[in-house]
Amino acid sequence: MDRQDLFSYIDSRKDDVIADLQSLIRQRSVSAKKQGLEQCAAVVAGIMIKAGINTRILNLPKDGKPDGQSSMAPPIVYGEVKMKRKTGRTPRTLLFYNHYDVQPEDPIELWEHDPYEGIVEGDYIYGRGSSDDKGELITRIKAVEYYLKFFGDVPCNIKFLVEGEEEIGSIHVGEYLAKYHDDFACDGVIWEFGYVNEQNIPIITLGMKGLLFVELTATGPTRDAHSSLAVLIENPAWKLVRALNKLTDTSGRILINDWYKEVRDLTESEKAYLNTESFDEIRFKTEYGIHSFLNNVQGVEIQKALVTMPTCNIAGMISGYTGEGAKTIIPSTASVKIDFRLVPEMDPLVQFERLKKYLFDNGFDERSLKVRLLHGEAASRTNVDDPFVDVVSESAREVYGDAKISVSSPATGPMDSFSKNLNVPCISIGSTFIYSKMHSPNEFARTDLLLKTTKCMCGIMDRFASQNSMTENQPE
Amino acid sequence: MDRQDLFSYIDSRKDDVIADLQSLIRQRSVSAKKQGLEQCAAVVAGIMIKAGINTRILNLPKDGKPDGQSSMAPPIVYGEVKMKRKTGRTPRTLLFYNHYDVQPEDPIELWEHDPYEGIVEGDYIYGRGSSDDKGELITRIKAVEYYLKFFGDVPCNIKFLVEGEEEIGSIHVGEYLAKYHDDFACDGVIWEFGYVNEQNIPIITLGMKGLLFVELTATGPTRDAHSSLAVLIENPAWKLVRALNKLTDTSGRILINDWYKEVRDLTESEKAYLNTESFDEIRFKTEYGIHSFLNNVQGVEIQKALVTMPTCNIAGMISGYTGEGAKTIIPSTASVKIDFRLVPEMDPLVQFERLKKYLFDNGFDERSLKVRLLHGEAASRTNVDDPFVDVVSESAREVYGDAKISVSSPATGPMDSFSKNLNVPCISIGSTFIYSKMHSPNEFARTDLLLKTTKCMCGIMDRFASQNSMTENQPE
Repeated sequence: MDRQDLFSYIDSRKDDVIADLQSLIRQRSVSAKKQGLEQCAAVVAGIMIKAGINTRILNLPKDGKPDGQSSMAPPIVYGEVKMKRKTGRTPRTLLFYNHYDVQPEDPIELWEHDPYEGIVEGDYIYGRGSSDDKGELITRIKAVEYYLKFFGDVPCNIKFLVEGEEEIGSIHVGEYLAKYHDDFACDGVIWEFGYVNEQNIPIITLGMKGLLFVELTATGPTRDAHSSLAVLIENPAWKLVRALNKLTDTSGRILINDWYKEVRDLTESEKAYLNTESFDEIRFKTEYGIHSFLNNVQGVEIQKALVTMPTCNIAGMISGYTGEGAKTIIPSTASVKIDFRLVPEMDPLVQFERLKKYLFDNGFDERSLKVRLLHGEAASRTNVDDPFVDVVSESAREVYGDAKISVSSPATGPMDSFSKNLNVPCISIGSTFIYSKMHSPNEFARTDLLLKTTKCMCGIMDRFASQNSMTENQPE
Repeated sequence: MDRQDLFSYIDSRKDDVIADLQSLIRQRSVSAKKQGLEQCAAVVAGIMIKAGINTRILNLPKDGKPDGQSSMAPPIVYGEVKMKRKTGRTPRTLLFYNHYDVQPEDPIELWEHDPYEGIVEGDYIYGRGSSDDKGELITRIKAVEYYLKFFGDVPCNIKFLVEGEEEIGSIHVGEYLAKYHDDFACDGVIWEFGYVNEQNIPIITLGMKGLLFVELTATGPTRDAHSSLAVLIENPAWKLVRALNKLTDTSGRILINDWYKEVRDLTESEKAYLNTESFDEIRFKTEYGIHSFLNNVQGVEIQKALVTMPTCNIAGMISGYTGEGAKTIIPSTASVKIDFRLVPEMDPLVQFERLKKYLFDNGFDERSLKVRLLHGEAASRTNVDDPFVDVVSESAREVYGDAKISVSSPATGPMDSFSKNLNVPCISIGSTFIYSKMHSPNEFARTDLLLKTTKCMCGIMDRFASQNSMTENQPE
């Protein structure tokens, strides 16, 4: 029996993969609203135990605040499978990092199905988290389950770290990694996501942008006032507009002093990979109903922007009356949520201080414009020359026929916490079709890609078992 | 029996005044949401009939749209009492203009009592509409009721026009006035509101500002997109911020071309009245929790701003995710509600065209920034030298001990429709304490002022009956 027989077996288990993913989708787990997180951790643990994985629920100690319960970090689901076969050398350990939390489902009225039902239509499974990240998580768990069932052992040690706060910035993952450092010790990490492009080619991603998420709140009168008084009372919505207008220019360039100070150029190897990536501009524009790109970028400039461009994005904004018809008031507050994407060497806390200083230097004061840090994560990139890259790349080619390498995702994850705490390479590879509406209404997963990725994970385990790590190659 | 005896009788009827006001408050009637309007018109009609007023419900014909029901104008309650006594000359006719609709109650969580219960605490009656305008309406109805009960007749003909769309710009009142022109023929109008200042002195108001209410909606991707794509996809919230920032400078001056083109200076008589008004700056600032006024205006400059300054006010703004915590998206739309207050000679439709032209001249295009007119009303001012001013002023002094004249309210009402259609002076006098939180949570009315205003209305009827109108004094 070889890997091809295992792959055939996996194809025969399609209904089992779908059923486990559905039970995960059906447990709502919105970290932004602290909904169903402990319950979802339990569902994950159950599926892992069923798969033959030794599973534990990890917690951090309560932080001692009076409302201890609500300020507790959601649990992490830890899983482990030790290789039984003895080879005479210390087996290598592969860690799967995933998350069981999802983005809020709003705007709920735009969903065509219940976002927490997991309805299957043809090759599509609909639901919040179906791709991001419950679908990806299922491919990792099922790969280990089927490998174990088929061969009676795994080719290397396997670990799982499944957290519940990825969508709100993995607030506690660093603390978990520090506290349970020995449990999570490993030689390589398969990251929680992985995109598949329009030509069904997976994008192997070696890095993540960082994120600084802030909320600005302008305050005006202590209560909404009749708008005829706008000749006397300053409107906080206007204050917010002035503040926002100072942050960027129309090209998206951030005007905050020293914002780009630490940004480094791409290395020559990184640049080389940039040119190999494909991007279907027409499909992308059709998908989002847009007619042009910001700054009219095209060709390799698109890849460059995705990998290297820091952003300042308005994720949400609210003030005053937003119902039907007219209400003539001066709102008492106006607030905005902003996410800044960061590139390597930008420290979220330093950037936050720069933002505050810039606003206050420009005439806004802390009394009437509150600037709140919601969270920050640094960017991270795995070395493009690490041999782990070939392990993943060959395994992907075996299943998908081809694979692309991306120096960095434009998105954010706690890769920096992993690379700093565990000192190992982290690589993204997965099953998420690039237009599967992650974070949007009608998110879906494709079963063909779920099965392919499950197979790919098996190939990675095999190849990883026999790979020499970069560290092992270096003199002690 | 003279007017002082009538006033004592009115004082004895306090509980009756409160009870009728409560039954009005309890019928929710939010015009912005088309809630309970026909029901409230019926409640008003019932109270008027009980008062001895001949009452009819007027309607406009359906506009023939398929959803005829929903696009129908809310009814107007019409009331009439003819003087029985014969004097040998045509009796004069006084029209009371009021409205039964109210502002939305949001934000509901800031109300200390149910906004539709009419809870009484000491001298205060709480509820949406308790002051604006159900409290004022009750003073007019009860004045006629008590005058009739006490003297068996009224001193002049009385008419009522109670509409249901004042809070959304009196969209159909002009049409009603045109259609029922003969029914509403009169010699003077007592307007729907009237403020009482911190020293319990009523402000007699001779004009209203106009209003242009618009909604701007910027559109971006066809659905919310993952914010990592902000390097490529233009964010509609940024577009909206750019557009808003172009509309005004930080002093509140409107930057739209020709915005102030038709604005005329105050006349000398108007200027003279400006200097007689009082304004308690410290109390006002305390009430709204603000530390300074826009442009640091003080003294007579405050009155001047309230009467003469056009405004551009953000009444509401929304885009993207506004729930708890973080969600990292590019919103698909961003919209803002803006109310512009206008002064005499500014035509709302002309100003609307100027707004659109300005935005499109500044690089915004109709495809990605929609500009929608919600409604427009022109400003209006009654001549400060009209003898009707003395009628109202003397009646107010009799009850309140003093009275102030204001050339124009900073707020808006359909006075222009009345003065144009009926060609008569319109004057505001009423019971609304200036800090009674109209349009805000915890709106209240003061029973002492309700009773005083009821008496004042009786005095106005008496004096109006014997007044010679400006038109009568002029040669035919």
